[in-house]
Amino acid sequence: MPRTPIRDLRDHIDQTVTVCGWINALRLQRKVQFVILRDATGMAQVTHKREGEGDELEQVIESLSDEAAVAITGRVVDNPIVNLGGVEIIPEHIQVLGQAEPSLPIDENSGLEHRLDWRFLDVRRRPASRLVFDVQTTLEQGMREYAYGRGFTEMHTPKLMGTASESGAEVFKVGYFDRTAYLAQSPQFYKQMAIAAGIEGVFEIGPVFRAEPSFTSRHATEFTGVDAEMAWIEGLDDVMAFEEGMLAHALQKVADVHGDEIAKVYGTEVKIPAIPFPRVTMAEAIEILRDKGWDPEHQKEDLDPEGERGIAAHIAEQTGHEFVFVTHFPASVRPFYHMRPGGRPDLTLSFDLLWKGLEVTTGAQREHRYDVLSKQAAEKGMNIEPMADYMNCFRYGCPPHGGFGAGLGRMLMVMLGLDSIREATFLFRGPNRLTP
Amino acid sequence: MPRTPIRDLRDHIDQTVTVCGWINALRLQRKVQFVILRDATGMAQVTHKREGEGDELEQVIESLSDEAAVAITGRVVDNPIVNLGGVEIIPEHIQVLGQAEPSLPIDENSGLEHRLDWRFLDVRRRPASRLVFDVQTTLEQGMREYAYGRGFTEMHTPKLMGTASESGAEVFKVGYFDRTAYLAQSPQFYKQMAIAAGIEGVFEIGPVFRAEPSFTSRHATEFTGVDAEMAWIEGLDDVMAFEEGMLAHALQKVADVHGDEIAKVYGTEVKIPAIPFPRVTMAEAIEILRDKGWDPEHQKEDLDPEGERGIAAHIAEQTGHEFVFVTHFPASVRPFYHMRPGGRPDLTLSFDLLWKGLEVTTGAQREHRYDVLSKQAAEKGMNIEPMADYMNCFRYGCPPHGGFGAGLGRMLMVMLGLDSIREATFLFRGPNRLTP
Repeated sequence: MPRTPIRDLRDHIDQTVTVCGWINALRLQRKVQFVILRDATGMAQVTHKREGEGDELEQVIESLSDEAAVAITGRVVDNPIVNLGGVEIIPEHIQVLGQAEPSLPIDENSGLEHRLDWRFLDVRRRPASRLVFDVQTTLEQGMREYAYGRGFTEMHTPKLMGTASESGAEVFKVGYFDRTAYLAQSPQFYKQMAIAAGIEGVFEIGPVFRAEPSFTSRHATEFTGVDAEMAWIEGLDDVMAFEEGMLAHALQKVADVHGDEIAKVYGTEVKIPAIPFPRVTMAEAIEILRDKGWDPEHQKEDLDPEGERGIAAHIAEQTGHEFVFVTHFPASVRPFYHMRPGGRPDLTLSFDLLWKGLEVTTGAQREHRYDVLSKQAAEKGMNIEPMADYMNCFRYGCPPHGGFGAGLGRMLMVMLGLDSIREATFLFRGPNRLTP
Repeated sequence: MPRTPIRDLRDHIDQTVTVCGWINALRLQRKVQFVILRDATGMAQVTHKREGEGDELEQVIESLSDEAAVAITGRVVDNPIVNLGGVEIIPEHIQVLGQAEPSLPIDENSGLEHRLDWRFLDVRRRPASRLVFDVQTTLEQGMREYAYGRGFTEMHTPKLMGTASESGAEVFKVGYFDRTAYLAQSPQFYKQMAIAAGIEGVFEIGPVFRAEPSFTSRHATEFTGVDAEMAWIEGLDDVMAFEEGMLAHALQKVADVHGDEIAKVYGTEVKIPAIPFPRVTMAEAIEILRDKGWDPEHQKEDLDPEGERGIAAHIAEQTGHEFVFVTHFPASVRPFYHMRPGGRPDLTLSFDLLWKGLEVTTGAQREHRYDVLSKQAAEKGMNIEPMADYMNCFRYGCPPHGGFGAGLGRMLMVMLGLDSIREATFLFRGPNRLTP
């Protein structure tokens, strides 16, 4: 018999159906056995009146444990008294498909690390852990729709690199037959290679790896990056316009599909951001922040997390907007391949996107002129020889281009108001965590 | 001025437009200069009559090289004589955005490895190299649509593992702070963990890593896997039905969007496969093959590439179908976690999907009962202790489930009739190739 989702039971009153799911709870009373069954679509009450000796069903129910996986065939009965949807199932047959040990290793009081050790049970039993992945699916779908709609090509660039990209710090080394490979910290060089390959818009959602011994709530050693890169731009604004358009589209979709459930489970509203997002230059941001007492010794060139929260709070106060692009970071704190505005070699055509005070994206226009790029690399004291394949991309007609890299987990974390990136990742990886 | 795609020039007759692209060819005659400009949508002729001294445009054109990236502003003129769409552009301004060195490192006679060294130029200039990624984008889009439509959740599982999965052979080792991590050979264990987490359909497109020193046309050390896993299945047929439905849907989409161009560029027809795909058990396949002289010594338990081609040829002859599911492989050649049919512990509920004689997918129903799974692992001489996190998934109610893993590059290779997986990958990785 085909399976009926619990959500649809009301359409099958007085019919016999099969539902499949996990035992959410058992209430075994003297005269009646109640089974609360849970599937991905909801919960249902299964009600069996004990018949005593020879009642096989009674014995099967008696043998169940919480979280056992079962298929229950029975009649759907309208019963307004039942809390769960006003229906109950009168079982005719119960098949135990996956038995569960009687005592579960985590419960509602378990701490985060303990929950992560038993992540499959955490996600299965805790709606706040589970809903993240439905939202992630919709968010990605929305972002891809937007990129596809603009003719972008979805690429899969290598995670194994022959040389360490950029500085070589914070890169994992891989034993590669008789030599060493490196895990890509980002698809940066490769998506630019795709631009040089004549692919005018590049989109990739995939893993990136950071060998950083960071233990904050927002860092992971492996996370899912959302990367885009686009050719023939006239300037940085084209890149920011793409990103804000993509996010507004995707958040609209998330709000439409999951808004109510997100409000219920996390107490958070998914706001559709107005376009354009506020923009503030780094110079303006620093002035605003110093007025409020940030960096009293005037020594910081870059925003620290406190500065990010400060500027976001300021913009939220002024505009009510959750997002802000901070632009034109100093060249000293940005990589050599960021383009610099004419006449201001100390600045870059770059941005960070802050969402509710957390950096969720870094972007820039890239320097596409071989001679200028070489000079900028030399100024940073970099040896371009190991990057020959990258540098070659600029020798045979590379168009102006720019793009960004965003963290999928960070976006989910901010959107849903989660305490840690660990909650926004199915199986978190950090310096001390390689399991499960 | 906003950019006009070359494909749309005909809509702008007698208007002034800006087109951006690469110099495909220059024909500099005594009286007239012809520039053939190429963008992602087509090619256009730009015609400039030399005016002699003081003609700045003439000098700019004279300075161009093949593949320079330029923006050309000019008037679109109807001219039936022009091969490229019957229009030409009379330039008013040419801006050189990315200069190109005068001689290109590859040409139409370059061999595959040399082309791969200069992959960005290969993809930019060679339609057969370029179209792959448009097709890939549409193929993925089609597969995701199908999975989304069935309520599947898109997951990103870790590529960094704390212990080597399965046998530990063919796994890359990663230096991970003061210990060793391993690169995932497949998301197998993690997508099963997602099933155990109550996610009833799991879908992932992402990189997988194989430390195999294979140099064939169909192996890579890193490739893009398409993985699905689904809960509450009644048997292997549910898994095969999902995959054939997904492929038929995605191929329909590819044929609709790119069918004509694929025929033109590769001389290949994208056939929409009829559903259901033919199915043949391994035992039947071996019988068919031995009748034709394969494995005269009756020693093979598994299909080799010759056997795969043989059985596919037989099915194609009998049914005209390009696909065939070969099912029920012997337990001896399948991993411990494949479920075995009742009463036949020597067989597995598994399949390979062959497409035009090449294996593009491996799938199975998984053993979800802890005790049976432990026994099967022990029979294979495996130590389950390092796999404790995986084994734990089966202790607290795991539903029956199954799934498959397909290779994206292999599918493209077969669909387009490419000679090698190298041609179906943007930046190929093999034992001897970690660049560009």
